[in-house]
Amino acid sequence: MNSIIPIITAFRNSPDRGAGLARDFRIRWALEEVGQPYRVRLLTFDEMKEPSYLALQPFAQIPTYEDGDVALFESGAILVHIAQQHQGLLPTDKVKQARALSWIFAAVSTVEPTVVERETIKYFEHGRSWQEERFAMADARIRHRFTQLAAALGQAPWLAGEFSAADIMMVHVLRRLEGSALLDEQPLLSAYISRATERPAYQRAFAAQRAVFESMNQAL
Amino acid sequence: MNSIIPIITAFRNSPDRGAGLARDFRIRWALEEVGQPYRVRLLTFDEMKEPSYLALQPFAQIPTYEDGDVALFESGAILVHIAQQHQGLLPTDKVKQARALSWIFAAVSTVEPTVVERETIKYFEHGRSWQEERFAMADARIRHRFTQLAAALGQAPWLAGEFSAADIMMVHVLRRLEGSALLDEQPLLSAYISRATERPAYQRAFAAQRAVFESMNQAL
Repeated sequence: MNSIIPIITAFRNSPDRGAGLARDFRIRWALEEVGQPYRVRLLTFDEMKEPSYLALQPFAQIPTYEDGDVALFESGAILVHIAQQHQGLLPTDKVKQARALSWIFAAVSTVEPTVVERETIKYFEHGRSWQEERFAMADARIRHRFTQLAAALGQAPWLAGEFSAADIMMVHVLRRLEGSALLDEQPLLSAYISRATERPAYQRAFAAQRAVFESMNQAL
Repeated sequence: MNSIIPIITAFRNSPDRGAGLARDFRIRWALEEVGQPYRVRLLTFDEMKEPSYLALQPFAQIPTYEDGDVALFESGAILVHIAQQHQGLLPTDKVKQARALSWIFAAVSTVEPTVVERETIKYFEHGRSWQEERFAMADARIRHRFTQLAAALGQAPWLAGEFSAADIMMVHVLRRLEGSALLDEQPLLSAYISRATERPAYQRAFAAQRAVFESMNQAL
């Protein structure tokens, strides 16, 4: 456990309305897994564009992570950093550890962009003549990735042999399509998400971000 | 230097025709920077779909990296792994090291998807009625990211204070738009790319991948 309590940033008013889909969730979950207390600084979209915040996060996004002098941005980097500081988020076996690191990057760089593309079409191409055709193209790409992912996971409980930061990242990416046919047609991935979301650390992280949404809603 | 010579995979016939834009380049460059000899296994697209390769790379992509028992996929993971094994690719100062790790993830997860989207429109939405409108939307996103990146870099030579794996990753992502107005309108980023590509290790890596293209072309 750190002697300094790390500080993360999150949306003051998350667009997901407390569904735990914003990227601070990955960090909350990881910190709950390792039993590291943390503080949260809530930011409006305007506050994320201020020079003092851009010095910490050049792309005006959440989350960031500050631990004394050390500051990180990008949820992937923060997860890797936390996993290096604490036991339990990366296998100690070198072969499995390399596999976990590979899967963390696969989640953010090969799987997540296909999922985000679908949201881009939903929100930014709404009302355009081509929206349905684009959804079909994006869904084909997602299906292809999900089929490859399910084949790689197979009957294993976790991506790198044992639970790791790779599962935090991948499950959180997949959850953005929860309730969609794209996930429902992949029973191995649905079971994988259930295994992960049943973890007590996941549930504590979920309750923590949910409490932010509820307190903001009461204040309105 | 490793006692085992690591093996990476690359395209037998790279779609970039020797321009050094395929993702094996990042690994070649990193290995040249640290002076680690390596071997290359060239693969056709069919070979990348074989079960033995999918066990190494579940998404049928290049590059992979094998170093004895340890195997990785995803260029980001491989770069981090090489930087952990060798000196010279990550700052030793903890504050700068955290910054470099953040930038590696920012390159693959915040900047690269906007660049890849442009290629998707170019190749997969060719001939569609909406292609020009989509290019305009994608270019606006790229401009936004490039402006934020240039502001963060400022007059600094490198992203994390000293040259690091973050610069290998970011410069290689940016190079995919070399020669386009999107880069030409960002003099700080153009100068950053020039600084990087002048490095002897970059040039050795470039020559090595170029030689593969030329040998394949001669064989035809």
